[in-house]
Amino acid sequence: MAIEDVLADLKKKIEEKVPDNTTITSVEFEGPQLVVYTEDPKNFADNGQIVRTLAKTLRTRIVVRPDPKVLVSPEEAIGKIKDTVPKDAVLSNFHFDPDVGEVVIEAEKPGLVIGKHGETLREITKKIGWTPKVVRTPPIKSRTVKNIREFMRTNHKDRKEILKAVGRNIHRECTSKDHWVRVTSLGGCKEVGRSCFLLSTPESKIMIDCGVNVGSDDNMTPYLYLPEVQPLNQIDAVVITHAHLDHQGLVPLLYKYGYEGPIYCTSPTRDITTLLQLDFIDVAAKEGKKPPYESTNVRDALKHTIALDFEEVTDIAPDVKLTFHNAGHIIGSAISHFHIGDGLHNVVVTGDYKYGPTRLFDPAVNKFPRVETVITESTYGASSAVQPSLKEAEKNLQQIIKSTLDNKGIVLIPAFAVGRSQEVMIVLEDAIRRGIIDDVPVYLDGMIWEATAIHATYPEYLNNNLRKLIFQKGQNPFLAECFKPVDSNELRKKIIEDPHPCVILSTSGMMNAGPVMEYFKAFAPDPNNTLVFVGYQADGTLGRRIQKGWKEIPVSSKNGTEVVKMNMGVEVVDGFSGHSDRKQLMEYFKKMKPQPERVFTEHGDERSCIDLASSLHKKYRLETRALTNLETIRLV
Amino acid sequence: MAIEDVLADLKKKIEEKVPDNTTITSVEFEGPQLVVYTEDPKNFADNGQIVRTLAKTLRTRIVVRPDPKVLVSPEEAIGKIKDTVPKDAVLSNFHFDPDVGEVVIEAEKPGLVIGKHGETLREITKKIGWTPKVVRTPPIKSRTVKNIREFMRTNHKDRKEILKAVGRNIHRECTSKDHWVRVTSLGGCKEVGRSCFLLSTPESKIMIDCGVNVGSDDNMTPYLYLPEVQPLNQIDAVVITHAHLDHQGLVPLLYKYGYEGPIYCTSPTRDITTLLQLDFIDVAAKEGKKPPYESTNVRDALKHTIALDFEEVTDIAPDVKLTFHNAGHIIGSAISHFHIGDGLHNVVVTGDYKYGPTRLFDPAVNKFPRVETVITESTYGASSAVQPSLKEAEKNLQQIIKSTLDNKGIVLIPAFAVGRSQEVMIVLEDAIRRGIIDDVPVYLDGMIWEATAIHATYPEYLNNNLRKLIFQKGQNPFLAECFKPVDSNELRKKIIEDPHPCVILSTSGMMNAGPVMEYFKAFAPDPNNTLVFVGYQADGTLGRRIQKGWKEIPVSSKNGTEVVKMNMGVEVVDGFSGHSDRKQLMEYFKKMKPQPERVFTEHGDERSCIDLASSLHKKYRLETRALTNLETIRLV
Ligand SMILES: [Zn+2]
Ligand SMILES: [Zn+2]
Ligand SMILES: [Zn+2]
Ligand SMILES: [Zn+2]
Ligand SMILES: [Zn+2]
Repeated sequence: MAIEDVLADLKKKIEEKVPDNTTITSVEFEGPQLVVYTEDPKNFADNGQIVRTLAKTLRTRIVVRPDPKVLVSPEEAIGKIKDTVPKDAVLSNFHFDPDVGEVVIEAEKPGLVIGKHGETLREITKKIGWTPKVVRTPPIKSRTVKNIREFMRTNHKDRKEILKAVGRNIHRECTSKDHWVRVTSLGGCKEVGRSCFLLSTPESKIMIDCGVNVGSDDNMTPYLYLPEVQPLNQIDAVVITHAHLDHQGLVPLLYKYGYEGPIYCTSPTRDITTLLQLDFIDVAAKEGKKPPYESTNVRDALKHTIALDFEEVTDIAPDVKLTFHNAGHIIGSAISHFHIGDGLHNVVVTGDYKYGPTRLFDPAVNKFPRVETVITESTYGASSAVQPSLKEAEKNLQQIIKSTLDNKGIVLIPAFAVGRSQEVMIVLEDAIRRGIIDDVPVYLDGMIWEATAIHATYPEYLNNNLRKLIFQKGQNPFLAECFKPVDSNELRKKIIEDPHPCVILSTSGMMNAGPVMEYFKAFAPDPNNTLVFVGYQADGTLGRRIQKGWKEIPVSSKNGTEVVKMNMGVEVVDGFSGHSDRKQLMEYFKKMKPQPERVFTEHGDERSCIDLASSLHKKYRLETRALTNLETIRLV
Repeated sequence: MAIEDVLADLKKKIEEKVPDNTTITSVEFEGPQLVVYTEDPKNFADNGQIVRTLAKTLRTRIVVRPDPKVLVSPEEAIGKIKDTVPKDAVLSNFHFDPDVGEVVIEAEKPGLVIGKHGETLREITKKIGWTPKVVRTPPIKSRTVKNIREFMRTNHKDRKEILKAVGRNIHRECTSKDHWVRVTSLGGCKEVGRSCFLLSTPESKIMIDCGVNVGSDDNMTPYLYLPEVQPLNQIDAVVITHAHLDHQGLVPLLYKYGYEGPIYCTSPTRDITTLLQLDFIDVAAKEGKKPPYESTNVRDALKHTIALDFEEVTDIAPDVKLTFHNAGHIIGSAISHFHIGDGLHNVVVTGDYKYGPTRLFDPAVNKFPRVETVITESTYGASSAVQPSLKEAEKNLQQIIKSTLDNKGIVLIPAFAVGRSQEVMIVLEDAIRRGIIDDVPVYLDGMIWEATAIHATYPEYLNNNLRKLIFQKGQNPFLAECFKPVDSNELRKKIIEDPHPCVILSTSGMMNAGPVMEYFKAFAPDPNNTLVFVGYQADGTLGRRIQKGWKEIPVSSKNGTEVVKMNMGVEVVDGFSGHSDRKQLMEYFKKMKPQPERVFTEHGDERSCIDLASSLHKKYRLETRALTNLETIRLV
């Protein structure tokens, strides 16, 4: 059936289900959802059940939009919204988009604008005609979140066209008589750094992640020239599991090379991805390297991004449904569940995950409606890779900080902007609030503050404890007074030139660049100070050299190279990883419901991948295999 | 380097090596070889060593051709050739091709035209300027061989252009920094019937076989739509292991779908392939089915075919060298050895093979300069699939024939045109000559006689015994008086209507069609006659039903369906297979030199493939795997 006929057919079915006095102007696909335009939005607002019933019978996600002629003026609408919503919601901004009949309402407490079961929202709809969409007023001003929201508004016309094309593509007819599922490993197998898979059927092609190996010039890029992914414009969708560069760093390259389709990820992943991609090309340029793509490609990617929530079943191709589940690794990190065909096969791609509770996140999900094949990360897959518990790690860190502060020393913690920094922040805030360590300033330098602002924007992606603290007790730990963003060169200069006991969290995590180097040069000579590593230090990095005990450290400075005398203490605190350790990886599969038939390992060095595959086979009798790059394996 | 520069460079190097008074007009690639045009062909003819030295230093195959201006007239040339060649050679035909400066000489004994180490040929070259090429005068007139030779002559201009393009493509520069080898299974894995593989590197793509599953409408065709082989015009070469339809039946389809490159196979494979492809579309048309391609596609394939001899190392892509070795399965059947990169990897694709001597062929080759990966057929791979020896089979067959003839009965043997028919013919000729069975006529009907004529054209592809018999003793068993081709409807009618004791070999081998049905209808009611099966009868065929003991056989006739009363004796003689049985398959790998690292099994039902893979792993500690269609596996 041609797509126009499909739409006409859907319109007829909808008209049969809605109340008699309801005029349906038109229906159109928009990304994975079906948009119903009506002159009587009130009829839908009155009865929240209609939309749910329609979605169920038509087996697609449904959005109702007012026909333009029933919209009241923006001024009038703002007045009515303010009348309807309780004061406590604190409305901060409105944006009207007449093309889609939408008004975006920024509120400090979006829940109050939505109301119980969406009651308040329906009330608003009835009064103004416009479809209200609610977003949170960022409690800490995030430049990234602000820019992205503005970008989406500015480009709403382009986006409307993109979503229409995507929607029609998803709902095209299936044509093949064959039924099979294949997975191609394009990168990230028996290695960490350029994760990229292709899931394909006779109907469709889905790319999962497209990372960059920043540590390797020769093997930086996934094998995007393979025929399985060529031409790139025949790919139906790109799915990003989470915002680390080894999973999304080269997604903009796909647009440079001709991809024109959608990207699916969670909202926090979208925002941090954009932040890190722009930083990635910025750093490359500063190092005198030619970045693999331009900022225009990053914007292209953003324009094509469709944000999904956890547990939301979404059609992303004629025969593929995607559902994201919490992965517990960093904010927005998702385990991707693919349901292929009509019950033909189910594939779970874990991305990076933590199967254990942390200060920030719930443990990774391992219960699915169905699952036959799992592709799992194996960072700590080696049988020796057991890590201390988070509790031990926290105690250890607190102890180190306490004794340094007791000696009037300064604690310097190199950390990645996203993930471990926020975990350590929560630990420090907790320790300071309870008086376990002194109430000293905790300086945040590099992109850490910006990343924290994004965390604060999406508390629904944090764990239950943290959400309760923020929503019910009004205690957002990220807003605690101890945290001082280093937002100017002057402040950094002051901290260095007039040193007082404090804790400094700064990028980069492996000390190969970034503001951490300024602090290091200043504080290394004093034996009262302590350098604390909370993350993995790769071979060849300055961090690794310091761990090895180097006492004279050559670092680059304005005048070439200077040598830093290393007198400060060095401590390594293991256990803060966002990855499951060996025990957690094994437990993840032991407790997985239902038991999968087959597990493929990737994202780890060769030994870790092989070791985990072999243990899972021996212990749980699963068919397993350590994947190799450049293979295409048939799943069914 | 651009190809023009490569050629200029080669020309310079050649000029440095040839005697001073030699003018090199030009050099050009032609298929896998380099053609050197000279005004002084005598200088090369005088010194056979020059060409060998050049080939060695330039690492490519070299052909020397006279510049057109030094050619004598065809009439004069024929005279000089006749003067030079001994009478015993029996020259039957000449064809001059001024474009390439070649004269094709047909002789009954080509060896006498060539002379010791090519001496006579060089003598001829010196006298006439033209480059002589010698082919055998077919001792039995083969319509196929004659048509193919004529076709090649008629299309020599096209062929020249094709070979030039192929040559330039083979000698293009390598550009990728990556080094890997992959194999894609497009058909014939865990099944028999549509063998098709793709071998690929970052530089090139080689397809091996492209068979048809004549027994299945749904799974008739290999998965040619896979991205790994698309677009087809990016494939560098197609290699055909042997002339059975399950290995070559859909090669013409590749040309229909846009492939434009060369086909490599042996000369007998080329001829029989053409014969069977034309028959295949003919049969389809007669059955009222739409054939998958037209005869024009068959001719296209033929025009692009480059015949190679066994043990000839040939560049077929910038980074791939192909060498054919005897497979012992049917005439011209080859085991393909691929040397990839500069010592990077060696892959052997066996095709179908017989690791054991037969009346016609030497056992399959299993000694290679190097081999890491083997892809092996597994027809009799199941541990239970041990066959009687050929000796037992022959005795058995002779016994059955003898006692039938003693009863004045007729022996009817359904057989495939190519392979088993000729094997049985040799057995019968031998038995009649020795007086073991009576000197009755042996009628050959269907395509058997034509296939036999092709065998007689290429005795160098038969085993040592047979070659000796033909060349040294002048006893070509295929020319024995007992064999009577049924070359007219009148003769067939006479055999049927005036029956005398005799043996009839007729297609089709499984009794689903062909002239065998006429004989069957006539001779089935008489209990003195015997039906002897020497080949496998697949499920659903009439042959299988008869083996099961059906006594009333419905067969189609002019007036719809008639029922044949089955009174004749039925015998099954196992052991005439052209495939290695289970024991021979295991032995083949036990004695392979050097030992490969890994063996993939295919071409067998699922159990046979898995059973063989598992036994090879357990017994010889090889890494093994039963391949699945639709996979791409990385070899290195
Ligand atoms: Zn990660
Ligand atoms: Zn990762
Ligand atoms: Zn065969
Ligand atoms: Zn075969
Ligand atoms: Zn084993």
